[in-house]
Amino acid sequence: MNFTLNILGTASALPTSDRYSSAHVLDVHGRLFLIDCGEGTQMQMRRKGISFLKVDTICLSHIHGDHIFGIFGLLSTMGMLGRTSVLNIYAPGTFAPVLDFFLRTFGEGLRFRIDLHELHCTSPELVAETRTLELLAFPLHHRIETYGFIVREKEPAFNVKKDCIEKYGLSLAEIGTLKRGEDVVRTRGDETETVPASEAAYRPYVPRSYAYCSDTAPFPELSSWVRGVDLLYHEATYPVEMKELAEKTFHSTTEDAAKCALEAGAGKLVIGHYSSRFSDLSPFYGQASAIFPETVLARELDTIEVPMKRTAGKNLDSF
Amino acid sequence: MNFTLNILGTASALPTSDRYSSAHVLDVHGRLFLIDCGEGTQMQMRRKGISFLKVDTICLSHIHGDHIFGIFGLLSTMGMLGRTSVLNIYAPGTFAPVLDFFLRTFGEGLRFRIDLHELHCTSPELVAETRTLELLAFPLHHRIETYGFIVREKEPAFNVKKDCIEKYGLSLAEIGTLKRGEDVVRTRGDETETVPASEAAYRPYVPRSYAYCSDTAPFPELSSWVRGVDLLYHEATYPVEMKELAEKTFHSTTEDAAKCALEAGAGKLVIGHYSSRFSDLSPFYGQASAIFPETVLARELDTIEVPMKRTAGKNLDSF
Repeated sequence: MNFTLNILGTASALPTSDRYSSAHVLDVHGRLFLIDCGEGTQMQMRRKGISFLKVDTICLSHIHGDHIFGIFGLLSTMGMLGRTSVLNIYAPGTFAPVLDFFLRTFGEGLRFRIDLHELHCTSPELVAETRTLELLAFPLHHRIETYGFIVREKEPAFNVKKDCIEKYGLSLAEIGTLKRGEDVVRTRGDETETVPASEAAYRPYVPRSYAYCSDTAPFPELSSWVRGVDLLYHEATYPVEMKELAEKTFHSTTEDAAKCALEAGAGKLVIGHYSSRFSDLSPFYGQASAIFPETVLARELDTIEVPMKRTAGKNLDSF
Repeated sequence: MNFTLNILGTASALPTSDRYSSAHVLDVHGRLFLIDCGEGTQMQMRRKGISFLKVDTICLSHIHGDHIFGIFGLLSTMGMLGRTSVLNIYAPGTFAPVLDFFLRTFGEGLRFRIDLHELHCTSPELVAETRTLELLAFPLHHRIETYGFIVREKEPAFNVKKDCIEKYGLSLAEIGTLKRGEDVVRTRGDETETVPASEAAYRPYVPRSYAYCSDTAPFPELSSWVRGVDLLYHEATYPVEMKELAEKTFHSTTEDAAKCALEAGAGKLVIGHYSSRFSDLSPFYGQASAIFPETVLARELDTIEVPMKRTAGKNLDSF
């Protein structure tokens, strides 16, 4: 039941000799979400030992080259590796002609279907879900149509406390009732006995969540849209002294990212998308962590784990 | 007066964690030729300290992804770095719609002109030249339209031997005559004195040359087309025991590459474009060098220098 972020690229528009373009792989329970796909993504995935074939969802924030120039190579490689399973891509509608061009020009021999889900939302919207996970998209504020993403676990089903099973001698049917979050009511003649779900049932863990916000200028709604996420990735292209350039280019500073994390009550802030002007990132860390102490600098091939938040004092043997 | 090959990528269709897709940069007298441009080329150029802006010629062999998927990122980066000088691209006509798509979709803000020179030759043909260099293209034998390239120095102008200048008391006009390769004929009355160009003039160095042959199946004409090159890059996707697969996919084996070098009388053979099946390349080296001893394995970020071949015993102070 892992929830693991793999950082593949931390550069902004210009990659450097040691910084790749934007790409994250979020691994939730072994299900892989690739978020943005800058040039070199497939090589970084190999270096990280991430299976190309286990990625079934790709989220693309916008069609600036540093966020998508790795997609042609990745799709070609998936094809050559014999992929047959459907690949879902969530992207702005502006990606449609890019994909169309790729398929027409380089798509010969691909044996897997690509389902492009065009994003059109104006506030956070559920765009995909499985039994245990949800993917949401929301608009960002950049020079072109851009979206952010949230991946989060759903509320888990209730478990029933072992000591209550013994105490009340619960039957399988009654355990089923409690697992639905409903009270058990027993009637014997005129007497009724209630086993309250609030006493006997519990959710075994608190759902975890990750939000991806790149590229974007700061805007008021953003912190509420990512409220309470455990892991917030927020671009910080520039240090605070370059605020003017950040505004002009619809990017964020370290301060913007940290304020968003603070207002959102995020568990941890990861900053990245660094301007190639800077090789030393310590000012980025210093500025952001002064506002939001739980800041980490994204670094190529880093792994950031969000530990399972088990509910206190419960029997979690079944997890 | 350098003549230096920089290897940026040695992979074939599938890049690996340490092998990039095809790309070479040939530096001749400080003039840079980029030959093929697989994904990650711009990062490899940065690692090698190669200036993006000094590349004014790009040669693309064919439009398989592993030879061109780095071009979008490179062109974008050139634009962001403020390039204004013309960029010449020599490529099959099939590249035209790729470039057109790039310019329509990602070309906004580019301030340099791209001149695409479509290749159509059926045997080696001069496609570009400067005062001192020639670029030739020739067809290869692959699954789709593919070209190889030769970059070579032109014959240098004649120099005049210092000792002859003294011996004959040559005037500036006479030195000019000898530099054109013509004999000096002096007439005094009935007497004529000849200073033969064959004695007094010499070419200060032998022109150097490099040929790029990838991707291709072996074919009879190839060795004559690259006859006598100093440095022959020939793909060797497969070891000899995979000859059948090589034939099926229109690729070459180590043996094919080495035989071509031998028949061509090349100075040195560089093999690359290795199948991702093989991490250990020593069999590639063993097989090729058994046929053609002057074989080297292409390795990422290697530099191969072709030393100036000065003519023996001459005064080369001016070079």
